[in-house]
Amino acid sequence: MAGLNRPGPFNPYGVTFSLASVATTPGFNTQGQTSLYAELAPYGIFPPHIHPRASEIIYVIEGSVEVGFVTTFPDYKYYSKVIKRGDVFLFPVGLVHTVRNVDRGKSVTLSSLNSQNPGIVFLPDSLYAAKPPINSSYLARASKLDENTVKDLQTKMWFA
Amino acid sequence: MAGLNRPGPFNPYGVTFSLASVATTPGFNTQGQTSLYAELAPYGIFPPHIHPRASEIIYVIEGSVEVGFVTTFPDYKYYSKVIKRGDVFLFPVGLVHTVRNVDRGKSVTLSSLNSQNPGIVFLPDSLYAAKPPINSSYLARASKLDENTVKDLQTKMWFA
Amino acid sequence: MAGLNRPGPFNPYGVTFSLASVATTPGFNTQGQTSLYAELAPYGIFPPHIHPRASEIIYVIEGSVEVGFVTTFPDYKYYSKVIKRGDVFLFPVGLVHTVRNVDRGKSVTLSSLNSQNPGIVFLPDSLYAAKPPINSSYLARASKLDENTVKDLQTKMWFA
Amino acid sequence: MAGLNRPGPFNPYGVTFSLASVATTPGFNTQGQTSLYAELAPYGIFPPHIHPRASEIIYVIEGSVEVGFVTTFPDYKYYSKVIKRGDVFLFPVGLVHTVRNVDRGKSVTLSSLNSQNPGIVFLPDSLYAAKPPINSSYLARASKLDENTVKDLQTKMWFA
Amino acid sequence: MAGLNRPGPFNPYGVTFSLASVATTPGFNTQGQTSLYAELAPYGIFPPHIHPRASEIIYVIEGSVEVGFVTTFPDYKYYSKVIKRGDVFLFPVGLVHTVRNVDRGKSVTLSSLNSQNPGIVFLPDSLYAAKPPINSSYLARASKLDENTVKDLQTKMWFA
Amino acid sequence: MAGLNRPGPFNPYGVTFSLASVATTPGFNTQGQTSLYAELAPYGIFPPHIHPRASEIIYVIEGSVEVGFVTTFPDYKYYSKVIKRGDVFLFPVGLVHTVRNVDRGKSVTLSSLNSQNPGIVFLPDSLYAAKPPINSSYLARASKLDENTVKDLQTKMWFA
Repeated sequence: MAGLNRPGPFNPYGVTFSLASVATTPGFNTQGQTSLYAELAPYGIFPPHIHPRASEIIYVIEGSVEVGFVTTFPDYKYYSKVIKRGDVFLFPVGLVHTVRNVDRGKSVTLSSLNSQNPGIVFLPDSLYAAKPPINSSYLARASKLDENTVKDLQTKMWFA
Repeated sequence: MAGLNRPGPFNPYGVTFSLASVATTPGFNTQGQTSLYAELAPYGIFPPHIHPRASEIIYVIEGSVEVGFVTTFPDYKYYSKVIKRGDVFLFPVGLVHTVRNVDRGKSVTLSSLNSQNPGIVFLPDSLYAAKPPINSSYLARASKLDENTVKDLQTKMWFA
Repeated sequence: MAGLNRPGPFNPYGVTFSLASVATTPGFNTQGQTSLYAELAPYGIFPPHIHPRASEIIYVIEGSVEVGFVTTFPDYKYYSKVIKRGDVFLFPVGLVHTVRNVDRGKSVTLSSLNSQNPGIVFLPDSLYAAKPPINSSYLARASKLDENTVKDLQTKMWFA
Repeated sequence: MAGLNRPGPFNPYGVTFSLASVATTPGFNTQGQTSLYAELAPYGIFPPHIHPRASEIIYVIEGSVEVGFVTTFPDYKYYSKVIKRGDVFLFPVGLVHTVRNVDRGKSVTLSSLNSQNPGIVFLPDSLYAAKPPINSSYLARASKLDENTVKDLQTKMWFA
Repeated sequence: MAGLNRPGPFNPYGVTFSLASVATTPGFNTQGQTSLYAELAPYGIFPPHIHPRASEIIYVIEGSVEVGFVTTFPDYKYYSKVIKRGDVFLFPVGLVHTVRNVDRGKSVTLSSLNSQNPGIVFLPDSLYAAKPPINSSYLARASKLDENTVKDLQTKMWFA
Repeated sequence: MAGLNRPGPFNPYGVTFSLASVATTPGFNTQGQTSLYAELAPYGIFPPHIHPRASEIIYVIEGSVEVGFVTTFPDYKYYSKVIKRGDVFLFPVGLVHTVRNVDRGKSVTLSSLNSQNPGIVFLPDSLYAAKPPINSSYLARASKLDENTVKDLQTKMWFA
């Protein structure tokens, strides 16, 4: 059960994070939990994403972040809020949610997910980072972008 | 338990569908199933989407469709296949999946989802159709698009 | 994920069927679903049976079938209906249900079961096909048949 | 939480029983258990039956009973045993099982079922006691009996 | 599926018991049940304990016992009752419960637990029998006992 | 989703805490999580306790605490560790666990529990704080204390 708060340098999205999970600690097996410690540089973001198998409670250790989630088709209501040190916010299971640092300095958060295997699906990364690539004509139609833009997006480096 | 195969005209994505679910039939309550009957015009598509709470088996009644799904971060492997009349394909629970008609004529499919409330999250619709809109600067960064393109996408009509 | 609609010749009950399940497709593991494609000759039947671990939605692809289910002790209410092409009917989990072709020609159905291992218990087959045989005096009393009739039934070939 | 061992006179099958369940005791709600106390006259029987939602452990308080269960299609293996005072036997969830007194005198049993609503489906009662009756031609074919015998069975009084 | 009612001599708490569980009978695997047969000498007791993963129905085969349970923090309501031959009582899942023989002679009980691995946590045994020992200053403060008393309790033989 | 880190004065055990749960925030309903923020004065403790329905991950925001848990009967192994700022430790579901501040100054922790209703059973509080009181002779025997000591403990104020 290692220390969480020693992640490495910021990635291109301005975040760095570490996990406490069954992958790092065998004793977590069957206990239904994963913890995520994250640091966000000024303007650092987590791209919109979904955890198919877990809700997430995010707690702010330092700084302030804007968090939000989108309800499912066909309503697509977006609930968002700026939360600060000592505040919590819950992302309901399976919903698209957003996290961005809105502090002048670094923000630090701790998240709990109620699954030992919550899964993570970034958006729109899953569409453009898929290998082999998804049919670009189909993607262009679904994304309301021209096909060349889609092909260009399919060559980029996504969240990693 | 009404008939399924009487959907209306095709929508702008070239599809029309009807559901057998607890919403249409109270007896489905607690039985853990939903059925979806769909017809796709030539080149009709379902945009990429996720069912957070159900796997989906799709069966082709008529025509031929290309179906596929993307595994989660960080692998993003895309498995796809053209299936024809009498074939089935399974979309694992919680994964982004794609459906497009590749027949010259209409294709007809029947899908079973193992939840009475599977949920549906279209991509990238959830990002651009959210109301109130998600911060466009954040979305631009996450989508690798310029902010004006994002603002334009936020004014469009998405899958409905 | 093989094609479903290529079953063999009709069995003595006038049916032929094929499954898409974890047994035929390893990718179904943990996805909680099984599909059953069936063809019924004129007057073909599935004997009354129970799936202990799944509800079943039956969809009629072609023809017309009479379907029904019996509620549990002590009510034994029988709900039945003739359904046709494009109709669906739900058999609640764990209840005895019946299926018989009432079309002049062949009927074709597709069923979804929300378990990867739904189980199937035919009635009264389980009583008479059991090996070694169940005590015939006991069975006669439970079935309200004379013991010789029971012993004769225990020599027959049941649904296979 | 009332006393269990005060059931009434024997029914035509030679048994009398009482339940401790959420129906008799509101405090059982959400606790996932039901208890069944039974007395069987010499040669008393419980007809073959299924609990779709519970396994059952039967304990012999007095006397001796033959118990057994049948595995599912297509194996139909029958496992049975005579158990005596102080012995237990487990009927797996969802399987057809049999109970008959093989003692010269009364036998007394206590069963635990791991559901607050285990359900009970007697065989072949569900076939012949169903109201309205199941199509007799269909039943005759499924039961390998002539249709008049089926019609006669449909007029009898079944386990109640 | 062995006989239950042949436990050995009474232990220092005046009880002897035997289990029917997956540990004694492989066929119990996945069936979600454990049975406990117990005999209590006059004044025999089971120390207060918790089953974290099962409710328990206790049935009195012979004699009379006082049974009770304590609700959780902060109410700590204690519900208790003397039950006699043929009576049942339910201990809700996860609550501290008590059992003591209040008969002049031996009492005999049969309990069903709705888990194949219910777990058992005796109180206060878990505090004083822990190896290596829990910090005695901490235990003294939590137990409102002086530290020497705690150190003495930590040397005793607890329920086994 | 209120702020967590504004609890009141320390209680007699040297702790103060606040919860984010379905009781404080209706949106937590069905999301399977509860958060606990705690501050411990120097030598502050949480008495040994159990959460019957949740595992707990504890994260140290400030200071250092000794944490541990005891395995179930009959092993009673005690696993403990001093964890510091940025460390996490997991208490498995249903096990007795201990928390005490070992820092010269205040320690601050954040815990996640994977249930919206984890339950909390303090030890030995449940034995002595029960109302009406548990039979003191029984408790004395179970606790290996003389009956007067037990009666005295039953008059004290326990964790609240």
